[in-house]
Amino acid sequence: MTVNEIIRKKRDGNTLASDEMKFIINGYVNGAVPDYQVAAFLMAVYFRGMNKEETAEFTKLMLHSGDIVDLSHIRGVKVDKHSTGGVGDKISLPLAPIVAACGVPVPMISGRGLGHTGGTLDKLESIPGFKTNLSIDEYKHVIEEIGLVMIGQTKEIAPADKKMYALRDVTATVECIPLIAGSIMSKKLAEGIDALVLDVKTGRGAFMQSYEQSVELAQALVGIGTSFGKETLAFITDMNQPLGYAIGNWLEMVESVECLRGRNVPDVMELTYVLGGAMVMLGKKAESLAEGIEQCKEVVKNGKAYEKFLQLVKRQGGDISFIQHLEKYPQSKYSEPITASASGFISAIDSLELGFSGIMLGAGRTKVDDVIDPKAGIVLKKKVGDAVERGELLAELFTDKKEILEQTVQRVKNAFTITPTPPKHTPLIISVVDKEGVKPFVMPNSVW
Amino acid sequence: MTVNEIIRKKRDGNTLASDEMKFIINGYVNGAVPDYQVAAFLMAVYFRGMNKEETAEFTKLMLHSGDIVDLSHIRGVKVDKHSTGGVGDKISLPLAPIVAACGVPVPMISGRGLGHTGGTLDKLESIPGFKTNLSIDEYKHVIEEIGLVMIGQTKEIAPADKKMYALRDVTATVECIPLIAGSIMSKKLAEGIDALVLDVKTGRGAFMQSYEQSVELAQALVGIGTSFGKETLAFITDMNQPLGYAIGNWLEMVESVECLRGRNVPDVMELTYVLGGAMVMLGKKAESLAEGIEQCKEVVKNGKAYEKFLQLVKRQGGDISFIQHLEKYPQSKYSEPITASASGFISAIDSLELGFSGIMLGAGRTKVDDVIDPKAGIVLKKKVGDAVERGELLAELFTDKKEILEQTVQRVKNAFTITPTPPKHTPLIISVVDKEGVKPFVMPNSVW
Repeated sequence: MTVNEIIRKKRDGNTLASDEMKFIINGYVNGAVPDYQVAAFLMAVYFRGMNKEETAEFTKLMLHSGDIVDLSHIRGVKVDKHSTGGVGDKISLPLAPIVAACGVPVPMISGRGLGHTGGTLDKLESIPGFKTNLSIDEYKHVIEEIGLVMIGQTKEIAPADKKMYALRDVTATVECIPLIAGSIMSKKLAEGIDALVLDVKTGRGAFMQSYEQSVELAQALVGIGTSFGKETLAFITDMNQPLGYAIGNWLEMVESVECLRGRNVPDVMELTYVLGGAMVMLGKKAESLAEGIEQCKEVVKNGKAYEKFLQLVKRQGGDISFIQHLEKYPQSKYSEPITASASGFISAIDSLELGFSGIMLGAGRTKVDDVIDPKAGIVLKKKVGDAVERGELLAELFTDKKEILEQTVQRVKNAFTITPTPPKHTPLIISVVDKEGVKPFVMPNSVW
Repeated sequence: MTVNEIIRKKRDGNTLASDEMKFIINGYVNGAVPDYQVAAFLMAVYFRGMNKEETAEFTKLMLHSGDIVDLSHIRGVKVDKHSTGGVGDKISLPLAPIVAACGVPVPMISGRGLGHTGGTLDKLESIPGFKTNLSIDEYKHVIEEIGLVMIGQTKEIAPADKKMYALRDVTATVECIPLIAGSIMSKKLAEGIDALVLDVKTGRGAFMQSYEQSVELAQALVGIGTSFGKETLAFITDMNQPLGYAIGNWLEMVESVECLRGRNVPDVMELTYVLGGAMVMLGKKAESLAEGIEQCKEVVKNGKAYEKFLQLVKRQGGDISFIQHLEKYPQSKYSEPITASASGFISAIDSLELGFSGIMLGAGRTKVDDVIDPKAGIVLKKKVGDAVERGELLAELFTDKKEILEQTVQRVKNAFTITPTPPKHTPLIISVVDKEGVKPFVMPNSVW
């Protein structure tokens, strides 16, 4: 068996055996297989794909390239959520404490902003003092003590994925469903979870822009989870406009804290309650999705979710006074209003453009070593479907970088489409994928 | 412009602009673009191909990565031949001196054995003392003095191709028509030629096993040659059985020298005269293919071709006494007859199997640094269409490696198919491709 033969086999559309994938992945990690052969292999996989068994095997090899955290000593069904990434997607921030407050342990390992999308880690780090780089031992202590922990990937978790992801990033082999699925699931399966809820984004601001691709990715993810004996449920959700009103790390933290205190930001809370309800259900604390949603609503109402979040911030070194007094936080040097140039209805808000605009303002990175400005970003004043008068405020920009303000104003303005008639309503949560297949999502009547 | 964007563009099936290919190829040669990005690029080209203009541009960039030999001071139209490689394909050995004897300068840069096929360089080096590693200056002197020169690739010729070929070899990206065509033509165009005749092999012993692929490759090669203003003619020829009777370096030299002295080995001489006639025609020494073939026959008959070959061997340091007295050459330690196990007709001889068998006997390399045994190989006693009696000699093996003799005997025996009825006759030269397109080859009536 040579690497060349294995690449050729995949190139010609054949299924790879476990030992063939092992030869490449383990060889790559230990340095026996050079990156140029792995690059050619990845491009062959891009064109030929992998079947269900290959994808599961690929994930298993990536998973076993590092440590798998053992949380079996912690009582309860441990459940996490993963989102494929969007703009304004702060859902993890209200969601994790809500689910933990319902009694389901949530061990969450998150990522940083990628491309035009934000990352939970960057948002958490906007809280002064908050530490995301805990060791695996500390991670275990925190989840044991408070039933909730939120950290970044450690070097022990799936090192093969880390090395391969960096290579994919520079060889145009990122957008490949089995590779994406293997990368996500190898990291999630290493966390010590028992079940997983997935938020697979679709549309303009998502990595998968078409609905069909999103379903395909969701099915690949659920297939892997199931093959590892973990209950896995995926929701396909709309990412054509940003989630909520805030885009930018601290701005999204503020919106999330307000939601935990009971503010109803409709799309944020709809998605939070449905994903949370599913997690509570998979965590065996509710019989049905409806019951799970009810419990989530209850812990927001009675303040337990907000308390859980304060407990988390404190336990991971954050200064809770900034959460308790959001107005204490420093302000951006410059702010700029964006106003409507016509009257009518907001029929579209280009989330991809807003994602990139946020990065320009300082909310994200264009290079790996860029430093993020946690204050920077965009606050929308209107969402799709809202009526607007000419001259009325559409959004406000926040930045310390005066030099880019003018061009960003134009870019954000252009991201809004105003039409004389209101747009057709489109659902936020489109469908749900489990091991049986895909079906349209229907909100339980009793709860909404 | 980033390499990642260029790879992505090709991956998504788009046409690359000249400056995009330049960015990758020149960057690869000067070390700015790492091999893993080039590997991903090559695999994307494998799947997406290149159009005619891209292939020509790609070739041009590889060509200009090194020196282009200037032979403009040498009178006459300089013509070379290139074969895509076969088993028993010794055509260059009789062909080059024949064409040179007709007054057409032949500057030939050849390769070594590759895969199951032999290489002209290895065959020339079987002559004691013969030097193939001349400098470009010596190369120019020899062609100027005797109208003929046969050397190996120098480091000045198409270094981008050299580097990229080595990468393709280990990343399963060899079998790709635009890459093959660019590799061949960048080297040929650097030789200083004015016109080129191509022998594109098809069938079991060829790199292109299907006729359609062979035509596609021939058209790509002719397209590139034409775009560089060089008259280029390609013949598609059969490689289902070996050419001639001898397989192995010195064994093929013996057969070639005998042909130059007037022996008629039918397939070898048919192909030599047609390719030679075409070269003489492109070299403006004949008005038609028929006239070119007549001239080639004449220089064999009057001994001028054989004299030209002796002149070449002597000029490049070879000991001509071995050519004049072929029997002087050392013999293999072991020889083994292969006999027919049934009576009937030879309906097939598997040239791929015979190519690999020859390598096992010592006639080729399995690793880059293997040393070739020039005496080793196979001499066929029967060819396709011949009648055979049970027990009659089919072939004879020659080797110094006793340990592999037994298994090779079996392998060679199995390469012969004997049937009760004679096989259908198939043509040796199937079709001819020029810039106008492909048409069936018809032997000029007057000459055959």
